[in-house]
Order: sequence, then structure tokens, then C-alpha cells
Amino acid sequence: MSDSRLPEPPYHVAIFSAQRNAADDAGYAATAQRMFELAAQQPGFPGAESARDAAGFGITVSYWRDEAALLAWRDQPDQAATRAHGRARWYDHYQVRIARVGRAYRSRPAA
Amino acid sequence: MSDSRLPEPPYHVAIFSAQRNAADDAGYAATAQRMFELAAQQPGFPGAESARDAAGFGITVSYWRDEAALLAWRDQPDQAATRAHGRARWYDHYQVRIARVGRAYRSRPAA
Repeated sequence: MSDSRLPEPPYHVAIFSAQRNAADDAGYAATAQRMFELAAQQPGFPGAESARDAAGFGITVSYWRDEAALLAWRDQPDQAATRAHGRARWYDHYQVRIARVGRAYRSRPAA
Repeated sequence: MSDSRLPEPPYHVAIFSAQRNAADDAGYAATAQRMFELAAQQPGFPGAESARDAAGFGITVSYWRDEAALLAWRDQPDQAATRAHGRARWYDHYQVRIARVGRAYRSRPAA
């Protein structure tokens, strides 16, 4: 994701932190890709960041222009069905937090 | 981190997403541990979650009871000095976002 696509705060984020189980890596990867493509079709989605460590613990932060855009994604039918299926199948446990970003800053680009 | 230590929303988070460079893994690990120990001594710090992938991209989310607790951590002298040193040394680039969590939910414990 290009940083430049992110707006200035305020914007909203969904923070998804989860422990993957060992089930069905291929199915998981295909679905994660499909979910990202669906998100990219939503209005007000500047992008997402994700990291997963070798033990399967991962954090994904998705960025949304405002809370309405985030809620529209939550309620998008394909996403909602895939989410319910996937969360039951691929995670030992997960947490979701919805937050409003009030400030943001970053490292200066290298000279 | 035990989930049970986290309060109900609202609370605050600092989302730190960063690309590690290849420098000084031992020094980085020791400092990360030291920073976590310093944070644990701060009032209003229920914990943190962190994941870094094999390519060195990582996300750390630290949780704070309220914005005042988060700002007190930002301004804690040892932390501020270590942060300035570390960010110049160990990252290709990073971003920090300060956000207020309004809602949170999680998977049900296994039966």
C-alpha cells in the first residue's frame, strides 16, 4: 500500500489481531486475497497493512475514510459471509477493535 | 498479553507500523525488551500486541487507558531518548497513528 493514498486524520481503522491455526493455508491465502480485492472496490478504503509472525500471530489494520465507510464494509454481503466462515475456520482466537485515528506521523523519506 | 487485562472501550492505542532494516538484530531485540519493561511500569498500560513478518515489516499496537497515559509514555525521558535513537537506527521507514478505540469484540473462548 502506498502511504500517499492515506488521507490526513481523522480517519477510522479496524485493528484485527488473530492467532492463525494450522488449517488450510491455501484456502486462507486465496480468501485473504479475495477479501482485499473486495475491500479495494469499496468507497473510502485507502488501504491496509498486515504482518504475521512465524508462529501465526498476525495484525491487520485496515484504513477507512470515515466510520460510515467502515460500517459499509462490515455490512457488505460477500464480505460478511466470508468473514463469518473464515473466522470460524482459520483462527484459534481473534480480536477486532474499531478506532478513530486523531493524529498520525511518519519517518521522513530518505534524503 | 492476557486479553483479560484490557479494559472495556473507550481506550487509546498507538499503532506503530515499520519496516525493519537489516542492522543490529541483537541490539534491536534488547532494546525492544527494555522498552516493553519501561512501558509496563507506566500507569494505564494494559499491554501491547506485535507481529513482524519474515520480510521485516511489523505492526505493534500498544494499549493505553486514556490519552493522558499514552502521552505520559511518549514524554517519559528514557523512552523518548531510546525511541529517537532506535527509530533512526533500525527502520527503513515507520508510521505512528494515535487512535481512540470506541468498540471492541473478540472470538468466544473455545467450549
